[in-house]
Amino acid sequence: MDHVGRLRRLRQIVGQDFDALLISHLPNIRYLCGFTGSTAVLIVTANKAVLITDGRYTLQARAEVRGARVVISRKGAFAAAAEWLGSNFGKSSVMGIEGEHLTVAAREQFRKLLPEGLRVRNAPDYVRQARMVKDEDEIASLKNAVLLAAKLFDTAVETIRPGVKEVEVAAEMEYAARCAGAEGMSFETIVASGQRSALPHGRASQAAIPRSGFVVCDFGVILSGYCSDMTRTVHVGRPSGEAQRIYGAVREAQEAGVAAVAPGVTAAEVDGAARKVLQKAGFGRFFTHSTGHGVGLEIHEPPRVATGRNEVLQPGMVITIEPGAYIPGKWGVRIEDMVVVAERGCEVLTPTRKELISL
Amino acid sequence: MDHVGRLRRLRQIVGQDFDALLISHLPNIRYLCGFTGSTAVLIVTANKAVLITDGRYTLQARAEVRGARVVISRKGAFAAAAEWLGSNFGKSSVMGIEGEHLTVAAREQFRKLLPEGLRVRNAPDYVRQARMVKDEDEIASLKNAVLLAAKLFDTAVETIRPGVKEVEVAAEMEYAARCAGAEGMSFETIVASGQRSALPHGRASQAAIPRSGFVVCDFGVILSGYCSDMTRTVHVGRPSGEAQRIYGAVREAQEAGVAAVAPGVTAAEVDGAARKVLQKAGFGRFFTHSTGHGVGLEIHEPPRVATGRNEVLQPGMVITIEPGAYIPGKWGVRIEDMVVVAERGCEVLTPTRKELISL
Repeated sequence: MDHVGRLRRLRQIVGQDFDALLISHLPNIRYLCGFTGSTAVLIVTANKAVLITDGRYTLQARAEVRGARVVISRKGAFAAAAEWLGSNFGKSSVMGIEGEHLTVAAREQFRKLLPEGLRVRNAPDYVRQARMVKDEDEIASLKNAVLLAAKLFDTAVETIRPGVKEVEVAAEMEYAARCAGAEGMSFETIVASGQRSALPHGRASQAAIPRSGFVVCDFGVILSGYCSDMTRTVHVGRPSGEAQRIYGAVREAQEAGVAAVAPGVTAAEVDGAARKVLQKAGFGRFFTHSTGHGVGLEIHEPPRVATGRNEVLQPGMVITIEPGAYIPGKWGVRIEDMVVVAERGCEVLTPTRKELISL
Repeated sequence: MDHVGRLRRLRQIVGQDFDALLISHLPNIRYLCGFTGSTAVLIVTANKAVLITDGRYTLQARAEVRGARVVISRKGAFAAAAEWLGSNFGKSSVMGIEGEHLTVAAREQFRKLLPEGLRVRNAPDYVRQARMVKDEDEIASLKNAVLLAAKLFDTAVETIRPGVKEVEVAAEMEYAARCAGAEGMSFETIVASGQRSALPHGRASQAAIPRSGFVVCDFGVILSGYCSDMTRTVHVGRPSGEAQRIYGAVREAQEAGVAAVAPGVTAAEVDGAARKVLQKAGFGRFFTHSTGHGVGLEIHEPPRVATGRNEVLQPGMVITIEPGAYIPGKWGVRIEDMVVVAERGCEVLTPTRKELISL
């Protein structure tokens, strides 16, 4: 990963508006310098970068960090950062903080730790902005995470049958993920069967899969730090004509969403393309969430693919396209791929077919 | 769970200082009204409680929420909350927010959404304070989570042998956890073997377990929302006298920490009791982290059991006692139990023995 280049680009931006920027959001820290521990802050100035962490991470920080000096502190990362800034900057210097990620209390505490005269200002979310467009190394990592998740769908198909508990399906998928090298799942595995398929966030439960009906499987892995996210809905037993209609409408909406993805198109336009299909099919009011979201080091990143979101898609952005329709008390269907915006149109990363599978 | 009582107690406190309190931290929301979804805010006033979430959670919210009215909104939880507050409160009313949990940007955005004249103030972390002392139902849930984790240690002991990858051990443990009903692991499973045992946060890696040396296993599950956390260190091959000495010192420190836990004792005193043993044994500078932390709906909760922490232990608090010693490049040992502060002393929840196991 190009940590040195990322830090260099950030240093140029930071230098225009701030004397120093305090990065506290861990995925941003990982993105900039490679550190994967759970406690750290990264100080970035026009010509320096310093990672501050604690004694639990001495060996790990030295092994992982690129482009930044490592400081191990006993006094807490924010206190050590305040001290470092105090000894490197004088009165009226302006310290940027990540207002999108830092809590109100942490900002207040940090301000009190700083020597008098140093000012604190909320900085734009420079790093997450930069992270929206993935570089080649990141796209390669995301592809690996997507392909691993796709294999887990095979595990799900092998495991799903009437009487098996939803969590048993999830357990088999997660075991396969770990054995294949995933650090973990990118979110709580959703296996929602029968009436529970109408719960868009129906985490795998102790419920047994019924004799007949949809099973929504929404899952992803973390592999080398990068997340994947996919959904397929299968049908247990022979699907009725009605079941085929709702599945067909969601599939058509999903494909319309994918077809709309291209550089220069807004996120709202992609959402609209998928939504229009479901509206025409009479399922508009049953599509109760947005069409997708960015994916990278975090499972939910900008841009949101939703009504009213005017972010313009650019080559290298990686997003999900995941419309669904949910009839409360009855059933639900969702289909989701990850796509990368290309120079023209997009490349679908998820390799899995979308024909309705009956088990 | 006593959601109604919890909300009632909070309403009494809120009414003294605020016209309304906006709860945005999801574990606090779950604690107060039972909602387990991923997007919501809870408004608490002196005589009302309103949970606002979105259309993905219509069914789930109605099934789970106790003691609060459910509002499903299309416009985002914060915007809907601002609107509700604006129509229920007039000028100069004071809205409390959770400064310990809300980001700087979210606070700012919320303030802008509120009608003019309504004021926003940071509220004390009332709910997390209340959560420090667990009630009977919570202790029962925590015990179940602890006992499930203890069974996973048997899985680890059966799986650990030279040549097996650390992640394979983690995969078997996580599979067993899921099959036994866990929603997931409470943090990334640590299986750190050989030299990696000197990494206090050595997440299970692709490294193969060497022929000889320590393996630190630190893990826990989430069961019915409650977390567990335990660590045992085993030895592959016959332990040398030196290995037995470091293990014995950590074990003695851990037992001294447990023995120090009692109502009226400070967190710092418990930390000191464990630390003193390792200092006397010559390992003081190799114990590079704090002795423990609270556990409940979150894996890390107050109180921190660390130097300088003057929180006084009270019956019903559940904490970890987990000293360790780490010799960089060589090896490390950590032993961890969960304990609940009792009327006198404490009850150790973790049932697992602490004799050094050689595999």
